[in-house]
Amino acid sequence: MRIHIHELADSPFSPITRDEFAGAAQEAGPIGAGHQVTFGTTIEEFVEQAPMIEALIAGPHTIRKLDLSLAPHLRLIQSTGAGMDALAPFDRIPKTALLLNNRGVHADRAGEFSIMAMLMLATYMPRFASNQRAKKWERLTSSIVAGKRATIVGVGGLGGGAARRARQFGVHVTGIRHGNAPHPDCDETKTIDQLDRVLPETDFLLLACPLTEATRNLLDAWRISLLPERAGVINIGRGGLIDQPALIEALRAGRLAGAVLDVFAREPIPADDPIWDAPNLMITPHISSDDPLRYNAATLALFFENLRAIAQGRVPPTLVDRVKGY
Amino acid sequence: MRIHIHELADSPFSPITRDEFAGAAQEAGPIGAGHQVTFGTTIEEFVEQAPMIEALIAGPHTIRKLDLSLAPHLRLIQSTGAGMDALAPFDRIPKTALLLNNRGVHADRAGEFSIMAMLMLATYMPRFASNQRAKKWERLTSSIVAGKRATIVGVGGLGGGAARRARQFGVHVTGIRHGNAPHPDCDETKTIDQLDRVLPETDFLLLACPLTEATRNLLDAWRISLLPERAGVINIGRGGLIDQPALIEALRAGRLAGAVLDVFAREPIPADDPIWDAPNLMITPHISSDDPLRYNAATLALFFENLRAIAQGRVPPTLVDRVKGY
Repeated sequence: MRIHIHELADSPFSPITRDEFAGAAQEAGPIGAGHQVTFGTTIEEFVEQAPMIEALIAGPHTIRKLDLSLAPHLRLIQSTGAGMDALAPFDRIPKTALLLNNRGVHADRAGEFSIMAMLMLATYMPRFASNQRAKKWERLTSSIVAGKRATIVGVGGLGGGAARRARQFGVHVTGIRHGNAPHPDCDETKTIDQLDRVLPETDFLLLACPLTEATRNLLDAWRISLLPERAGVINIGRGGLIDQPALIEALRAGRLAGAVLDVFAREPIPADDPIWDAPNLMITPHISSDDPLRYNAATLALFFENLRAIAQGRVPPTLVDRVKGY
Repeated sequence: MRIHIHELADSPFSPITRDEFAGAAQEAGPIGAGHQVTFGTTIEEFVEQAPMIEALIAGPHTIRKLDLSLAPHLRLIQSTGAGMDALAPFDRIPKTALLLNNRGVHADRAGEFSIMAMLMLATYMPRFASNQRAKKWERLTSSIVAGKRATIVGVGGLGGGAARRARQFGVHVTGIRHGNAPHPDCDETKTIDQLDRVLPETDFLLLACPLTEATRNLLDAWRISLLPERAGVINIGRGGLIDQPALIEALRAGRLAGAVLDVFAREPIPADDPIWDAPNLMITPHISSDDPLRYNAATLALFFENLRAIAQGRVPPTLVDRVKGY
């Protein structure tokens, strides 16, 4: 198969190297053999390769900027990111190409980030950071997190990884998912319709679902008002899941224990955005799913797993449903 | 036995209540029965009770302020804190009384705080907090902590709890302890003399040992210079373990990934202390061992365990060695 690996210079993803591809191809066995692989970092290089490309491996921000109509033989697009919101409504993605993302690759790192954020909220770290700016020593005591309750919206790769780590610390995990099929790492699962009834019992609200038209502004002023004052909010999904001005207002009013946010309405956050000055908030720059030491290898392993499924006539494990948007 | 429970109003410890004592006494079985118990919060109340007291239960800051020579029958002092540095050199503690601390009670909470701090340092949280103050978006990527190396100075209750949690995340733990007897939660142990050889390989340096004349300024400018630039420093022991100006200088110079400090040379930190403005540092107000929901019950359980050992002629498990200082 003619595979083209592309990452534009301004992409937040670190480019897959020739060595990384060769290593993953060898690991994959027969399905990894016999491919012709090209690499590119500029629009011009893509235009040049496009007529031959059968499979494209690229980050979503790169895919969005490429004119895929130049690639008539394109059958397969492997995104090196999981969130598909940058590509929705998918009108520029050829309908005849299989669109695959890399969901699941981020589970371990997202799990670590999430338990760190829960421990930080339980320990009042965001408030201590605000106090530090004001040179204020305020001794707020807290206990271990065992017995506290986490509500995790979305228990796919990210949320599942978070649930796994949270339970290691004795946190009670309620997973919010389509249907409410049991999840091996959740104490219980609920549907999104039941979220409002769970919020008043929540210590840690973790948003880890895709951004779609159905989930935009999921955490709005009303739902924030349902959270108890001891609750903390964590967002590792997408900024658009939260009504950001409403959250800032709640933090300013001391209506919450704090928040740890990794994703924002606008990224990079502009210097004049009021979120920089919100109290009891810790801002991280969209890094909660990074894992550079293992990321590209894991994505490529998934690519070959998808290829193998296709060769065997199975549905590839990370095929994107363009109606659902993930 | 005539037991007096005392906590002065300005103590950072939350006072043991009559109900908490009754509950713990009942839990303890026969050894908890038949005691006469009094409570006090002022110097006057202590003076009044002193002639009758056989056992005193109090925090170290309270013990230091009480005139124990007024209590001729005092045989047993159970500290509700583990650090004995406030009482050293013990010249005001009657030599004929057994001095007991509550080491071990803090293990679970200290373990949670420590793994939180390690994850924060691996994720550049202290630097992100500095960036947030400057409204600066800087995307620093990082990976999961598996395979990183923690050096834990002191693997008693605090350090042991930290080692246990760190290993759950695949962190390689080197424990620094007297002698170098193996520790069940450490991958390896070294003596303090070997510390300088371990520092250059350290990702997380966690100080969790008692403050004594032997450990004062343990982390000085020289040892800081032995740490690699990627290393982070965590202190949950005592402020005096670190040459604080030297650490501030290293943080300012960007010589370290960051620091998470819970204890300080002066507490509360005065408003004019330069540490408030040190970059890449997260300050918490001496809360890393708090666990109010379980703390008093655990301390009282230990008190009765000590009583039981004494009744059976064994060495009480948390007897303080006044020469070693812990």
